[in-house]
Amino acid sequence: MDKNKFAQTPPMGWNSYDYYDTSVNEEQVKANADYMAAHLKQYGWEYVVVDIQWYAYGAGSMRDKHQYIPFSKLEMDEYGRLLPCPERFPSAAGGAGFRPLADYIHSLGLKFGIHIMRGIPRAAAQQHLPVLGSSQTADEIANPSSICGWNPDMYGLRREEEGSQAYYDSLFALYAQWGVDYVKCDDICNTNLYKENPYSAAHEIEMLHKAIEKSGRPVVLSLSPGPALIEKAWHYEKYANMWRITDDFWDKWELLLNMFERCELWQNHVKEGCFPDCDMLPLGFLGKGFGEERQTNFTKDEQVTMMTLWCIFRSPLILGAKMTKLDDWTLSLLTNQRVLDLLKEGHHGVQVERDKTHAVWAGREEKEGRVYAALFNFCEEETEVSVSLEDLYASVSAANEEGAKLTAEELWTGETVECKDGKVSGSVKAHGAKLYLLKKR
Amino acid sequence: MDKNKFAQTPPMGWNSYDYYDTSVNEEQVKANADYMAAHLKQYGWEYVVVDIQWYAYGAGSMRDKHQYIPFSKLEMDEYGRLLPCPERFPSAAGGAGFRPLADYIHSLGLKFGIHIMRGIPRAAAQQHLPVLGSSQTADEIANPSSICGWNPDMYGLRREEEGSQAYYDSLFALYAQWGVDYVKCDDICNTNLYKENPYSAAHEIEMLHKAIEKSGRPVVLSLSPGPALIEKAWHYEKYANMWRITDDFWDKWELLLNMFERCELWQNHVKEGCFPDCDMLPLGFLGKGFGEERQTNFTKDEQVTMMTLWCIFRSPLILGAKMTKLDDWTLSLLTNQRVLDLLKEGHHGVQVERDKTHAVWAGREEKEGRVYAALFNFCEEETEVSVSLEDLYASVSAANEEGAKLTAEELWTGETVECKDGKVSGSVKAHGAKLYLLKKR
Amino acid sequence: MDKNKFAQTPPMGWNSYDYYDTSVNEEQVKANADYMAAHLKQYGWEYVVVDIQWYAYGAGSMRDKHQYIPFSKLEMDEYGRLLPCPERFPSAAGGAGFRPLADYIHSLGLKFGIHIMRGIPRAAAQQHLPVLGSSQTADEIANPSSICGWNPDMYGLRREEEGSQAYYDSLFALYAQWGVDYVKCDDICNTNLYKENPYSAAHEIEMLHKAIEKSGRPVVLSLSPGPALIEKAWHYEKYANMWRITDDFWDKWELLLNMFERCELWQNHVKEGCFPDCDMLPLGFLGKGFGEERQTNFTKDEQVTMMTLWCIFRSPLILGAKMTKLDDWTLSLLTNQRVLDLLKEGHHGVQVERDKTHAVWAGREEKEGRVYAALFNFCEEETEVSVSLEDLYASVSAANEEGAKLTAEELWTGETVECKDGKVSGSVKAHGAKLYLLKKR
Amino acid sequence: MDKNKFAQTPPMGWNSYDYYDTSVNEEQVKANADYMAAHLKQYGWEYVVVDIQWYAYGAGSMRDKHQYIPFSKLEMDEYGRLLPCPERFPSAAGGAGFRPLADYIHSLGLKFGIHIMRGIPRAAAQQHLPVLGSSQTADEIANPSSICGWNPDMYGLRREEEGSQAYYDSLFALYAQWGVDYVKCDDICNTNLYKENPYSAAHEIEMLHKAIEKSGRPVVLSLSPGPALIEKAWHYEKYANMWRITDDFWDKWELLLNMFERCELWQNHVKEGCFPDCDMLPLGFLGKGFGEERQTNFTKDEQVTMMTLWCIFRSPLILGAKMTKLDDWTLSLLTNQRVLDLLKEGHHGVQVERDKTHAVWAGREEKEGRVYAALFNFCEEETEVSVSLEDLYASVSAANEEGAKLTAEELWTGETVECKDGKVSGSVKAHGAKLYLLKKR
Repeated sequence: MDKNKFAQTPPMGWNSYDYYDTSVNEEQVKANADYMAAHLKQYGWEYVVVDIQWYAYGAGSMRDKHQYIPFSKLEMDEYGRLLPCPERFPSAAGGAGFRPLADYIHSLGLKFGIHIMRGIPRAAAQQHLPVLGSSQTADEIANPSSICGWNPDMYGLRREEEGSQAYYDSLFALYAQWGVDYVKCDDICNTNLYKENPYSAAHEIEMLHKAIEKSGRPVVLSLSPGPALIEKAWHYEKYANMWRITDDFWDKWELLLNMFERCELWQNHVKEGCFPDCDMLPLGFLGKGFGEERQTNFTKDEQVTMMTLWCIFRSPLILGAKMTKLDDWTLSLLTNQRVLDLLKEGHHGVQVERDKTHAVWAGREEKEGRVYAALFNFCEEETEVSVSLEDLYASVSAANEEGAKLTAEELWTGETVECKDGKVSGSVKAHGAKLYLLKKR
Repeated sequence: MDKNKFAQTPPMGWNSYDYYDTSVNEEQVKANADYMAAHLKQYGWEYVVVDIQWYAYGAGSMRDKHQYIPFSKLEMDEYGRLLPCPERFPSAAGGAGFRPLADYIHSLGLKFGIHIMRGIPRAAAQQHLPVLGSSQTADEIANPSSICGWNPDMYGLRREEEGSQAYYDSLFALYAQWGVDYVKCDDICNTNLYKENPYSAAHEIEMLHKAIEKSGRPVVLSLSPGPALIEKAWHYEKYANMWRITDDFWDKWELLLNMFERCELWQNHVKEGCFPDCDMLPLGFLGKGFGEERQTNFTKDEQVTMMTLWCIFRSPLILGAKMTKLDDWTLSLLTNQRVLDLLKEGHHGVQVERDKTHAVWAGREEKEGRVYAALFNFCEEETEVSVSLEDLYASVSAANEEGAKLTAEELWTGETVECKDGKVSGSVKAHGAKLYLLKKR
Repeated sequence: MDKNKFAQTPPMGWNSYDYYDTSVNEEQVKANADYMAAHLKQYGWEYVVVDIQWYAYGAGSMRDKHQYIPFSKLEMDEYGRLLPCPERFPSAAGGAGFRPLADYIHSLGLKFGIHIMRGIPRAAAQQHLPVLGSSQTADEIANPSSICGWNPDMYGLRREEEGSQAYYDSLFALYAQWGVDYVKCDDICNTNLYKENPYSAAHEIEMLHKAIEKSGRPVVLSLSPGPALIEKAWHYEKYANMWRITDDFWDKWELLLNMFERCELWQNHVKEGCFPDCDMLPLGFLGKGFGEERQTNFTKDEQVTMMTLWCIFRSPLILGAKMTKLDDWTLSLLTNQRVLDLLKEGHHGVQVERDKTHAVWAGREEKEGRVYAALFNFCEEETEVSVSLEDLYASVSAANEEGAKLTAEELWTGETVECKDGKVSGSVKAHGAKLYLLKKR
Repeated sequence: MDKNKFAQTPPMGWNSYDYYDTSVNEEQVKANADYMAAHLKQYGWEYVVVDIQWYAYGAGSMRDKHQYIPFSKLEMDEYGRLLPCPERFPSAAGGAGFRPLADYIHSLGLKFGIHIMRGIPRAAAQQHLPVLGSSQTADEIANPSSICGWNPDMYGLRREEEGSQAYYDSLFALYAQWGVDYVKCDDICNTNLYKENPYSAAHEIEMLHKAIEKSGRPVVLSLSPGPALIEKAWHYEKYANMWRITDDFWDKWELLLNMFERCELWQNHVKEGCFPDCDMLPLGFLGKGFGEERQTNFTKDEQVTMMTLWCIFRSPLILGAKMTKLDDWTLSLLTNQRVLDLLKEGHHGVQVERDKTHAVWAGREEKEGRVYAALFNFCEEETEVSVSLEDLYASVSAANEEGAKLTAEELWTGETVECKDGKVSGSVKAHGAKLYLLKKR
């Protein structure tokens, strides 16, 4: 199995976290999946991902004090494997696990994903539970010094114990049986409690990779949280499909602005099976589980900026909204096929220039030689942004005959302009973007 | 209560760790106490301290793999307070705790100390045990993100929960009942798992201090491990009696050499009730519990250097040896009253100079105006070390009449030399020291 | 000579920088000195200090681009020693140097200070000038890798060349001849260009100390800029009289608020001859040389806070204002003798408590046993601040008979209040302070 | 101009530094060039590079104290451009510069390179020299705070002054006139004096790139010293041809061992026009200019390891030896065409695995699908090293039919072995390597 074939282009899907926090239930997952099948599937959106705490009783019930209730009850089998909490996922009862829900998602022509924390439950270690397929017990493979900085549920696994790989193998055997297509593993991309060794779980990444291979199922492996470590780019590229390049991304301009720095850093690391991940798209309705349901704080122009950057950079696109409440405008943002084309095979994007006021990215499509220009305006007012064709074409090593007459079609609006004075230019709204496809006249 | 009165001079005593590791038992403690009472008490040695894991079953039984067995059984009362393991401390059975042992130590005219880890047992949190004197339970006050980097037993306590102070109060109420005179609290002086916040348990230091005051018993508070943070000197000075200025100290020349740097750093922080702590003296027989019983690796000259530095700096003196096997030479090192006088009230010491080859310290006794000079040789061969009387006296702000004729008595050997050319000099053995008391001729 | 006798209490004086920047001239210095002699001297203010660039031609003439003009002309003698620029200091012409100005200051009963940068002029090194009293030349002692991060004039001196000490000796021989009483040496307390070794000029501090001793003149040595390194406290205490504990301090609340953290850190390091320095007092008119003359941005309450903190902490008091324009209110702030008493011998101050909303300091006078309480309010509105008498007295190890009836006199307003419920309390204005002297009823 | 075309494969050549230090002269350069033309050119070796201080008088004359004599005389034109010192490069006299020497090198069918330090001479700034093609003067563009940590000659240039680009343009106009083909710019890849901003000269890299484009001559741009910053990989790739990935590399096993870590880090960054640089090959005779002429300290096995790693990683190959004294064995190491083939277009290499005892790299040739395996032994004794064919082929995304029978030809010895048990194996000497080309049987 070649993990790079599991995700040849950036995965597109939906994740429950931004809207539901830790409390999503089966009915809600299905409703969102139904919407995706009906409205988004045709544009390439396919993953439906249940995020953190699907195994926890009472999740979300102490939200004023704890996002994750310390030492609370988790649904767990006799081998220390977490199972869906039957109070929220009734179809999981009786040992069915996520199989019924996955079957439903698959029946819609979609794919099913889950979130996990690296490691083994603390309670399993305290109880000395056996590890399936190993003579070791949980207390022997759990590393009591390897904890997550923000979630109290698990212990990381010891590198040197054979039972550690066996435990991960037992997880993915179960997930394969359930029909899981995508696993987002948390507290692993950057183990941020350990400032001097934020890559302390490297061996667990390798174990996850191996467990997937052993499972025989092509499960996309997504690593969280960021920021991913650029000095470990080679390691992510070798073992995972996507990895978060920032800490949690939300609907704040400062975070979006910062993403340009992250994309600059990771621009030469996007390739088949390997996708630096800008995190979920906080669009539409958000935050219900956090006790503060709201529409995204991003302006429409900022949303255009976000979609343009994610697409030309070729980040995975994972929607954070409650899909069933998407409005027409937001839906149109997610279904602009000519923009989404940038995610397809044969494309790549690079930054041409960036300063405090603006950024320019170039995109390239190999087969037909198409060139794209994305102009971003970081200012608080509408501003003219331009880039020289020479720099633009040089950035993507594309030949641009001197003197050739070019036009540029803006892909969000359909407007076409002429390129004058050897430049592509546009008047860009505050915090907004223009995305041009260049053509010979 | 004024905690500075609990230890007006540097505490002197013995600790079980260097020889017994985690496995010391009641009989051994008593045998060592007997020896101290017979041979050392008259020189000021008084504390008998039982170090880590006195509450653990099977302590030391997996020494090849773990010093502290993860998720193992600890003796604990219904309020999550650790009790002496009755397998090793038979007199503790039936709820007596350390009271019988403390009584025995006290009957010898000595004082009794114990080691604790900061926080509450992990098992207490997992079991949601009640906290004595509080309506909160262990899971509410335990911070699942606050762990020790090297011991798996405890969770640190939350600053913001009232039950945290109540838990520490319940501990010291018990210790007062037992008759504990000295508590060495570990994982607190430098919480070294947290590189970016090695003083993350500051609030627990304050709670310990308050718990001691509430207990009504003058318990010396010793903080471990080091290195203590110089930028928190004011805080240690306010709440504790002694704090470790290095990581664990053992019988290696490199560590002893490094102590000169640590003493330089802390030299102006030694005062009544406040003693930067150079750690135990690894003399005599050591290491049995570690599976490698040995005589100290220090040469005799290095041992003289250690004792001279600890005394002129005025560190606490806590012996690490198995006392019952002390040889005459080592005993003489520990019972040189004129050297031990440096620890008495009215003395202080400062570094005069230090480089890669040597160091010189000056000592001052206020009442009679005595001046001491300690010459240390860091070289691999015997070397002449000297210091100008001008620098020496200036360092301790002592007046030295120009031209006064001085002699210097070496306190380890009793030899007396004349000071010539405005200097004190001596030929010092490799890694050795000379300690002079200066006198007018 | 004992340098601790040069400044037995915190130096009080005036410095030209805050108002005149790099451009002060002789006439201005004299006018300010006249004012000090007439209005402030009787309260202990005595030093008149000419700050940076007194040797530079054209200083201040490119203020839009450079505070210090790179590669510009400096007045320098044949030994590479900087001399007052005769364009601004006419009396210095003909080789007189600062002697005439110093004589004038002395004639007023005041003391004279100057600012220097550590090291030797870059131009002296480029020209291979001889070093007085040495066979070495400037290029041999100048370290081309040791530069200031913000001023282009000098190179630091090499530790290992004998000519380095000779150069500093030649400087202080000249300064002694001029009659200099105080030297503020810059780029030395924290060599902040070198993040990994901000104490890279330790040897130059020692050389300055030795040069002062050799000069035979008791010159107060003040080190700048901060923040001083707490781990080198022992070194500052050994060689200097005052050292800056922050970066440049100006009239911004955030900086004043931050000073509480710095004073907390350094509280146990204030003693005869050794004064952690909170920097100049930006009061009255400021900033002319910076092209933005203004009255201090501090509110009156903030000014009271500043004076209270500086006094109870016992920082040097160096006024930054243009003295000749001081208004009555500001003058009263600087001449409250009962507050200034805190600087006298036999006093010390410590922090009792501090959080985000307030701080409390205690002061103690040894001889008569006086106790002070300073209450600071960090909030944006007037707030009740209080401290328990128990904590207050314990902080300064003062005995407070239980039940004793106390009154507290506020030293800025003269009001007297009774201490009730075992507390000292006061309603303190936003960003303001109250300073109480406690008395038995 | 597309800078990636200047160096489509890793540059191969010779550099004067390792043997001659700062003191190489014209005659020596020519002699080495003659040797290269006669013995190495046919294998692809072509660059002859004159390293640091070709402009300095007296270079090397104070070698006991300084490698670079502070404030010494440099040959410089009226625009502050450094010229070859005529004492060592006689043909440069009369304004000819390096043109005659470059002509000679070119006449041999080779290419000519020089070393420069970033910035402008300190003496030019002190003298306020004019900048060619600009109205600014040297003092205006020189940044007095931007210095090299180990060489005292230059100041970095200011980003914001137009004269800075003009100065670099004037340099490359001159170099183009001379016929320079390769510039190694120093103190720029990692400005290691500035620990918190080791990429402080990013703008100077961009200026150099632009100056080369303006010069119209395809000059290879090599950046030094390392370690290059992995987080700036995208920037090096955009503006330079090669960049040093370690600090200076010499003939010590520890440094060679460390290079495996560096190559791991940079493995996915090797491509046309972009070559992470492992530094010069310290082979043959070395160190004469350093006062310690010697044969390389590397064992023959270590030399094989070095050549194998450099080639499979595809580092530039820049020989450090005195070529005229190369022995036959060393020459054979440099002229093994089948090994050097790895540098050709269409090849790439990746690490398969690495631990403390060994490493394995895989190489791939795209056109014919050739696969290479390099086995490295880090142990102190001969050891069996092996790698599974599955991992090997997966690493380079090459298909390996299961069960296919393979042989492996070792390219240094010519031996052929069969692959058994799904592995390539070899008994590898201590610190040695085997380089296999895999073939179907």
